Amino acid sequence: MIFADIIAGRADASTVYEDDDVLAFMDIRPMTPGHLLVVPKVAARNLAELDPAIGGKLFQVGQQLAAALRTSEVGCDGVNFFLADGVTAGQEVFHVHLHVIPRTPGDGFGLRGRPTSPRRADLDYLAGSIRGALGRSAQGS
Amino acid sequence: MIFADIIAGRADASTVYEDDDVLAFMDIRPMTPGHLLVVPKVAARNLAELDPAIGGKLFQVGQQLAAALRTSEVGCDGVNFFLADGVTAGQEVFHVHLHVIPRTPGDGFGLRGRPTSPRRADLDYLAGSIRGALGRSAQGS
Repeated sequence: MIFADIIAGRADASTVYEDDDVLAFMDIRPMTPGHLLVVPKVAARNLAELDPAIGGKLFQVGQQLAAALRTSEVGCDGVNFFLADGVTAGQEVFHVHLHVIPRTPGDGFGLRGRPTSPRRADLDYLAGSIRGALGRSAQGS
Repeated sequence: MIFADIIAGRADASTVYEDDDVLAFMDIRPMTPGHLLVVPKVAARNLAELDPAIGGKLFQVGQQLAAALRTSEVGCDGVNFFLADGVTAGQEVFHVHLHVIPRTPGDGFGLRGRPTSPRRADLDYLAGSIRGALGRSAQGS
């Protein structure tokens, strides 16, 4: 597993940040120059396996990196966060990773897909089902 | 500002989660059915203005929602997180919001753009510049 090898120092990486819980390094297949990955040091194949305390840290390190990218030679003026949880979501490496993607005008990166405009009743119906699922998982925890 | 109006109860929303700091509700322009937005209750136009403690909570609520979506009637088997920070990154509402996007096979959602394969020396050069920028912001804080 490539990220485990990087964390263990067995594989090369261009590291930008490290603390006890989190490592951030350059994506070797960047969507834009300066594209970073933020990963937990502890193994977690997906969001369900990730300790929420560490999940929160991934976001916080992402915030720091978003600021640093703007003042670095990457010279972006916007940043996207992206995370894929599950094969269907495009996850390819099964160690949780938050993408931090610097943006400049005309860089060609973005989202693919077309938003719809559902009726409020349909939104309310799904919202009720999601609230129910949250409630069941809270009882189970 | 629409999110401020939702938080204040002045505008309708199909809410799925609420605590002292965070609100989550259905996106009225969903990329896929069940597309959610997770927002801080306190105003923060961008990641730089967002208290990192609250930023961490956005991610943690996202983790809970990712699990709930899978067992709800949305019935997804993958989830994407997406966040746009700055106009160039596609940000349209200037109140920080984390997109939680359920995924099913063939839903048409995804990323646009083409990754490149830079040389390690180029990755190392940018990594050094980003580390320098992180160091300067740590000294300044």
